[in-house]
Amino acid sequence: MSRELRGAPVAAAIAEGLRRRVDALAEAGRPPVLAVLRVGERPDDLSYERGLQKRADALGIGLRRVLPPEGCGQGELEAAIRSVNEDDEVSGCLMFRPLPAGLDGEAACTLLAPGKDVDGVTPLSLAKVFSGRGRGFAPCTAEAALRLLDHYGIGLSGRRVTVVGRSLIVGRPLALLLQARDATVTLCHSRTRDLAAACRGAEVLVVATGRPRMVGADFVTPGQVVVDVGINWDGEAGRLVGDVDFDAVAPLVSAITPVPGGIGSITTAVLMEHVVSAAELRH
Amino acid sequence: MSRELRGAPVAAAIAEGLRRRVDALAEAGRPPVLAVLRVGERPDDLSYERGLQKRADALGIGLRRVLPPEGCGQGELEAAIRSVNEDDEVSGCLMFRPLPAGLDGEAACTLLAPGKDVDGVTPLSLAKVFSGRGRGFAPCTAEAALRLLDHYGIGLSGRRVTVVGRSLIVGRPLALLLQARDATVTLCHSRTRDLAAACRGAEVLVVATGRPRMVGADFVTPGQVVVDVGINWDGEAGRLVGDVDFDAVAPLVSAITPVPGGIGSITTAVLMEHVVSAAELRH
Repeated sequence: MSRELRGAPVAAAIAEGLRRRVDALAEAGRPPVLAVLRVGERPDDLSYERGLQKRADALGIGLRRVLPPEGCGQGELEAAIRSVNEDDEVSGCLMFRPLPAGLDGEAACTLLAPGKDVDGVTPLSLAKVFSGRGRGFAPCTAEAALRLLDHYGIGLSGRRVTVVGRSLIVGRPLALLLQARDATVTLCHSRTRDLAAACRGAEVLVVATGRPRMVGADFVTPGQVVVDVGINWDGEAGRLVGDVDFDAVAPLVSAITPVPGGIGSITTAVLMEHVVSAAELRH
Repeated sequence: MSRELRGAPVAAAIAEGLRRRVDALAEAGRPPVLAVLRVGERPDDLSYERGLQKRADALGIGLRRVLPPEGCGQGELEAAIRSVNEDDEVSGCLMFRPLPAGLDGEAACTLLAPGKDVDGVTPLSLAKVFSGRGRGFAPCTAEAALRLLDHYGIGLSGRRVTVVGRSLIVGRPLALLLQARDATVTLCHSRTRDLAAACRGAEVLVVATGRPRMVGADFVTPGQVVVDVGINWDGEAGRLVGDVDFDAVAPLVSAITPVPGGIGSITTAVLMEHVVSAAELRH
């Protein structure tokens, strides 16, 4: 059986590193505050928001809800973002997406002040991930995958890494972050031919496709490390499952992240760290 | 013997597509103008500038030299960039790099007006290449490689492409441009282990390392398309050579670009196209 790479210890280590920094900010009279911008009341968003509240409370980070009314227009959304930009007490902002139909999420993201962009959605943050230059935060989920690998001492330099999925919030930024750590990265996606072979050729395999259990036994080889970024609700099984068929893959590989209990639990910790860093950089 | 993928016909096709657009701009009283910002008189820069002048003249594009004095400080350099930004007649600007020691090229690049960034050096241009969203031009050499593949009808969707070299002006942006065309891209670099194997596994191999003739016969397999982005002076041979050992590789593969006469000749045409597009977008 493989080693299970659980997220909780990684998240705990990140949180542990934040306590003193949060205290120092509070003592200086400028405690870190995360603004959550949400339009509407999707159950997923509300559930994630509750998790954020709990984590923020535990760390002494403020959480402020910014709630343009459901059915609001683009102007109202953008006014809300401007108010976040101008609010001197807000250190960083997370905007729940996708936004309701009719709202232009891209335009909204571009409007966010780069210094408050704690989830890496603005062009300047993307440029930073691409070039390694300047300031800016990487998208939290992409960074969470990297932090997990670091925490468990999984070397990246010179290793063959295959990333499956090329989204702007995970696959593409993660491929660049891994490359910056000297991995040799292959970025696969829905048009990749013989995906299973591309996966088998990797020493580290990261899957972020949003397709439940699509990576099965024939995608892996002994000795591999498998990171499963997917979180999907399996109605039939009545539980969350990853993009990797854990039961089929775990016995074959050297190490694997569980779902739930893997990357997901690290993402929030990374977000909180970005909020604290943003608060420190503002002053 | 393999098919030789020459750059001249690609450059000619691009230039042909520009004539009517340049005429339309001139008739509207706003002819396209490229500003060349150069500090010092490096022979390479001067030689490239002469090539630009010739190409611009042939197309009816204006060329304006902006020449901060050799030995100038960062302030003087940045004032020159601001003057370019504010000059309403300038459509786009190419800054020769590397700049002399003591000048901060990154800071200078960030200062350039995004709309005039015809060589893809500003953060907003990088973000556009990364995300595919917004406006912005790709670095000319990276785009030139893509245009060559397109011109010769070499399909990219679903194909395995290996890019060797991860510079910000070729390797990294080209990997993203190829991925956006649905290729499965592996980005290799100096830390890649068994580079030869990674190259042999590709259907299309693009080399941009700046290391003369580093890719030899053992890096390729029959049927491959090889694109050589390198241009290196070989003092011993007294001529320009690529990053690929052409004589050793050409007999083995299906198609290959020569050096000189390959990508280099397309880069200037792409730059001119960016200048024309920038002029059109300004109004």
